[in-house]
Amino acid sequence: MQQTRLDTARIRAARTVIDPVFLDTPLYRCEALEPVLGCTVSIKLETANPVRSFKGRGTELVASGLAAAGERAAVCASAGNLGQALAWSARGRGLDVTVVASRFATAAKLDRIRALGARLELVDGDHELARERAAAIARRDGIRLVEDSLDVETCEGAATIGLELAARAGSFDTVLIALGGGAMATGIGHVLKELAPGVEVVCVQPLGAPALTRSFHQRRVVTTESADTIADGVAGRYPIPAVLDDLLLVADDAVLVQERSIITALRLLLDHAGLVAEPSAALGLAAVLEAPERFAGRHVVTIICGSNVDMPAYRRWVTPAPTS
Amino acid sequence: MQQTRLDTARIRAARTVIDPVFLDTPLYRCEALEPVLGCTVSIKLETANPVRSFKGRGTELVASGLAAAGERAAVCASAGNLGQALAWSARGRGLDVTVVASRFATAAKLDRIRALGARLELVDGDHELARERAAAIARRDGIRLVEDSLDVETCEGAATIGLELAARAGSFDTVLIALGGGAMATGIGHVLKELAPGVEVVCVQPLGAPALTRSFHQRRVVTTESADTIADGVAGRYPIPAVLDDLLLVADDAVLVQERSIITALRLLLDHAGLVAEPSAALGLAAVLEAPERFAGRHVVTIICGSNVDMPAYRRWVTPAPTS
Repeated sequence: MQQTRLDTARIRAARTVIDPVFLDTPLYRCEALEPVLGCTVSIKLETANPVRSFKGRGTELVASGLAAAGERAAVCASAGNLGQALAWSARGRGLDVTVVASRFATAAKLDRIRALGARLELVDGDHELARERAAAIARRDGIRLVEDSLDVETCEGAATIGLELAARAGSFDTVLIALGGGAMATGIGHVLKELAPGVEVVCVQPLGAPALTRSFHQRRVVTTESADTIADGVAGRYPIPAVLDDLLLVADDAVLVQERSIITALRLLLDHAGLVAEPSAALGLAAVLEAPERFAGRHVVTIICGSNVDMPAYRRWVTPAPTS
Repeated sequence: MQQTRLDTARIRAARTVIDPVFLDTPLYRCEALEPVLGCTVSIKLETANPVRSFKGRGTELVASGLAAAGERAAVCASAGNLGQALAWSARGRGLDVTVVASRFATAAKLDRIRALGARLELVDGDHELARERAAAIARRDGIRLVEDSLDVETCEGAATIGLELAARAGSFDTVLIALGGGAMATGIGHVLKELAPGVEVVCVQPLGAPALTRSFHQRRVVTTESADTIADGVAGRYPIPAVLDDLLLVADDAVLVQERSIITALRLLLDHAGLVAEPSAALGLAAVLEAPERFAGRHVVTIICGSNVDMPAYRRWVTPAPTS
């Protein structure tokens, strides 16, 4: 395969740097989901850790690198999970972290960022405005700008999930990966294409935030004017060219799903798997719901990449509609 | 310490027999729970596996032993989790399993037992009647009766949780363990008393099903006329003498909690930890809620031992009361 920006030896080495609390997460078959979905379903659960998302894998690499380089501070833009994870990884290493987020971000995520001791700055706009503001802070203060998906550590961290999946290759056919900035898809995809090339890598993004999926299919960066989805973790509009290049090398497909499928998937995960997922984490099952014939009889692994939800919204999503 | 029925070398060996999907479960600090509870809280999560409870650890030992002995069938009484786990462990080994349960058992558990291919027989009474009926079937058919907590494999399986906790000893003060038949408490307690004697072992049972806790305090078997609790997994009435003897050796305390505390704990786990727990799995946090001064400033580990709930009941438990 052509070279991505990633390197499997570095990804293996990353496992020795990342706090074990983020590694070797549960991977198990969930038969109760299968009659509904028409395929064999395994769960890779990335929520049972101190930040309730997979992002700690990458921020551990970022923060240990900063500490080793004698840096004292960093700034990132985040929809909430990266910021929370970076705050967690930085706290134990004496690093000051500023997180820039949209004021429309999930309140529970913002609360946790503050509780973990990071400085939180809110912008009156979406995630792309937060990215601009974070870059401006980095320039002004001369500190490291941590850019999700662009910074290779964020991809390498996510890629350690790929190592764990590759160790079980042969037992499943397809991995469904939420697609936002692309760190998780390119990271896991890189490892699977190298170590388990028979596994199909399918990225899933909401129809309401389709920039990277459209870019994948058109093989060039496509931006969108707006992003409108409950899947806050993947609501970017400006794909990063280097990430797209990698994605084109390692993903087999990228698909878009409707909001109502995401909500149905959230409810299935709660009702049949006993799992709280944030909307981004339900994208994989939403893809199965929208194309059951495509996955029929296959064994899919879906990565439950986060569970940070605002409870009032979550309760609305998972409450069955009243029957009249 | 005086000898329990358990042996740590055997428990270590058990790890090589149990399917890894049940082992090395997440253990992580959940800071979002801490302001509410007034202590440091870590979660040991036993629900991210194919049967959504810790019981697979024990049934793997039971089923592999049966298969090695050339047995073809077994019967157990179960509130649902043991039956589900035994059905799972037996399926891959060609063993026929009959599960006897109360017809009042959690429907979701009974559905999963059936789905896993076990024969399910319902009795018109509580768990103790199911135990009698299972024993009668075993005698009639000449097959192995699997008795939770009495059969040492069920305790040794649970005790492998203790090994995982002991490996992290020094980071926490107290382990809170749901108390039902006593397999989990005696298993984990045995290992901790041997490998990490500084850790306090606190068992927690519902006030509505207090038989083993009363027995512990009176140092003799105390039975109750009835059991009335939403914590279906621990609603026994007839403690097993040999299990009580072990419990007296390895538990530091046993406490009783009210139903409303269990419900509050269920809600806390959902709202602040993003975890679905069954009522038995919320007993530990219920104990903290009822005695915050006892645990203030301490670091407690609570074992989330199962997540098999009937969703309509679960939704009622975790729905905030309407404010008038």
